[in-house]
Amino acid sequence: MLGFPPSSFDPQNPDFEERVRSSFNRQRVMQTIGARMTTVAPGAVDIELAYRADLTQQHGFLHAGIVTTIVDSACGYAAFSLMPADATVLSVEYKVNFVAPAAGALFVARGRVVKPGRTLTVCEGVVVTLHNGVEQLIVTMLATMIMLRDRADEASSE
Amino acid sequence: MLGFPPSSFDPQNPDFEERVRSSFNRQRVMQTIGARMTTVAPGAVDIELAYRADLTQQHGFLHAGIVTTIVDSACGYAAFSLMPADATVLSVEYKVNFVAPAAGALFVARGRVVKPGRTLTVCEGVVVTLHNGVEQLIVTMLATMIMLRDRADEASSE
Amino acid sequence: MLGFPPSSFDPQNPDFEERVRSSFNRQRVMQTIGARMTTVAPGAVDIELAYRADLTQQHGFLHAGIVTTIVDSACGYAAFSLMPADATVLSVEYKVNFVAPAAGALFVARGRVVKPGRTLTVCEGVVVTLHNGVEQLIVTMLATMIMLRDRADEASSE
Amino acid sequence: MLGFPPSSFDPQNPDFEERVRSSFNRQRVMQTIGARMTTVAPGAVDIELAYRADLTQQHGFLHAGIVTTIVDSACGYAAFSLMPADATVLSVEYKVNFVAPAAGALFVARGRVVKPGRTLTVCEGVVVTLHNGVEQLIVTMLATMIMLRDRADEASSE
Repeated sequence: MLGFPPSSFDPQNPDFEERVRSSFNRQRVMQTIGARMTTVAPGAVDIELAYRADLTQQHGFLHAGIVTTIVDSACGYAAFSLMPADATVLSVEYKVNFVAPAAGALFVARGRVVKPGRTLTVCEGVVVTLHNGVEQLIVTMLATMIMLRDRADEASSE
Repeated sequence: MLGFPPSSFDPQNPDFEERVRSSFNRQRVMQTIGARMTTVAPGAVDIELAYRADLTQQHGFLHAGIVTTIVDSACGYAAFSLMPADATVLSVEYKVNFVAPAAGALFVARGRVVKPGRTLTVCEGVVVTLHNGVEQLIVTMLATMIMLRDRADEASSE
Repeated sequence: MLGFPPSSFDPQNPDFEERVRSSFNRQRVMQTIGARMTTVAPGAVDIELAYRADLTQQHGFLHAGIVTTIVDSACGYAAFSLMPADATVLSVEYKVNFVAPAAGALFVARGRVVKPGRTLTVCEGVVVTLHNGVEQLIVTMLATMIMLRDRADEASSE
Repeated sequence: MLGFPPSSFDPQNPDFEERVRSSFNRQRVMQTIGARMTTVAPGAVDIELAYRADLTQQHGFLHAGIVTTIVDSACGYAAFSLMPADATVLSVEYKVNFVAPAAGALFVARGRVVKPGRTLTVCEGVVVTLHNGVEQLIVTMLATMIMLRDRADEASSE
């Protein structure tokens, strides 16, 4: 973010990484599209997705909604990494700008917490790809996440 | 939209419906997730998606990004329906508010043109589901689409 | 909103109109720019602003930020009208599309609640002006408002 | 922006600074609210505003719309600084998150170009204030600007 040094956030839950990865593994859509969580740090999560022709729009690029899917989860889990152990996270809203078509072999979504809050957490995200060894920006996101307490971070089993 | 009667737009291309449906059919992600285009009218497109467990986030709801995928295409094709025959469409940016979890059996995305322009078209979209016969709002979107000329609405085959 | 009949919301506070108008009157910026609250109904507030050359950007149109100022307050007070008597309201975030330059003599901002919630309320807003007796859309907004409890809706007096 | 080194953009117009400052000086709303342009660099513009009680909302903070006014102009002029000499700039849309109330003595809006384009330029902005010598983030913006050619960057005089 502009003029702000990367914040070093203190996680409230020492097991934050385990909780983030376990929740991500329950996001079944991630297996469906082949996304993989790589980095998990306090307030910072990366998710990778390889290009697949069955995820494309009419020009053969990854569909905007699929790119959004990985950067939304990267931002949501960046927020979740700073939450206490009894909390869960939901997306309130996000805005995404598409600055280049999603053409490439591998896409990396980076979600970062801008401002954690008791209820709402503001996050920033990007999706990048490599072109001839240089990172190219595909997408930039600004998102609001909400913390819900006393609610399991799992599907209910009725 | 507030205080505005539904506009009746005049399509520039009499074959707009064929062009919209044909382009949608080339969005391979739509087959992957099982989405189906229903209504196509000038400035108005609907897309349906049935619930599938393999498209969910950690609580068992449809992932926000998947819901975004269908409403983005509904808005994009609503814009495309008003464009001339040699144009194609891309999403510039969108903002989505998630007003209820995507729980339900069938989801309908409605994209509508708010303001068509020579270069940019502003669209509004919603995703709704039925609960006990009553429509429930899941998502509301505000989006900007861009028209590109002299560029085929197809993947290039290199 | 698309496919949704205008909702009829029940205010929690019978004195909602008095509370909304009194809070608006404490927004000193509104006197500074000459804005006036007209309609106040449950979940719906209108604010008017006459063109003034001292509120313009470089082309002589009202500045985007000034147009945003009135539609933000219209949305915020639409949300506030549905809140209990001990609550106050703040803007969490908004997104605004500028669909036509703010040229005209009188601008009307309309804020409407899309979905009221215990904590967050989603609102939609427009700004319109009259051109030859026909309403022209200038701006469309999608906004998230937050309710804060046990906090006076007034400036603290230190 | 995340993981991106500050770009060094090459201005197309060697007189970019003069053009930016001259256009800003024609934004009459800036004199009305007392805003001042400080830094102008290729793709980067800062605007300062001192607190004034006549620009506040009901709690005595600067109104969200006024904060938006300065960061919108900072982003718009950051984009304008990279445009050719015969162009002008307009805001297409923006999204703003309010991460802290606008309480403070002096507010600095920073607009930065994320991705310049032939037609559209994506910008990021923040507004910060000083609390006990430490910068506090008030607002973060993600915006789309459009370049218009062959149109004077001045009000027409009919």
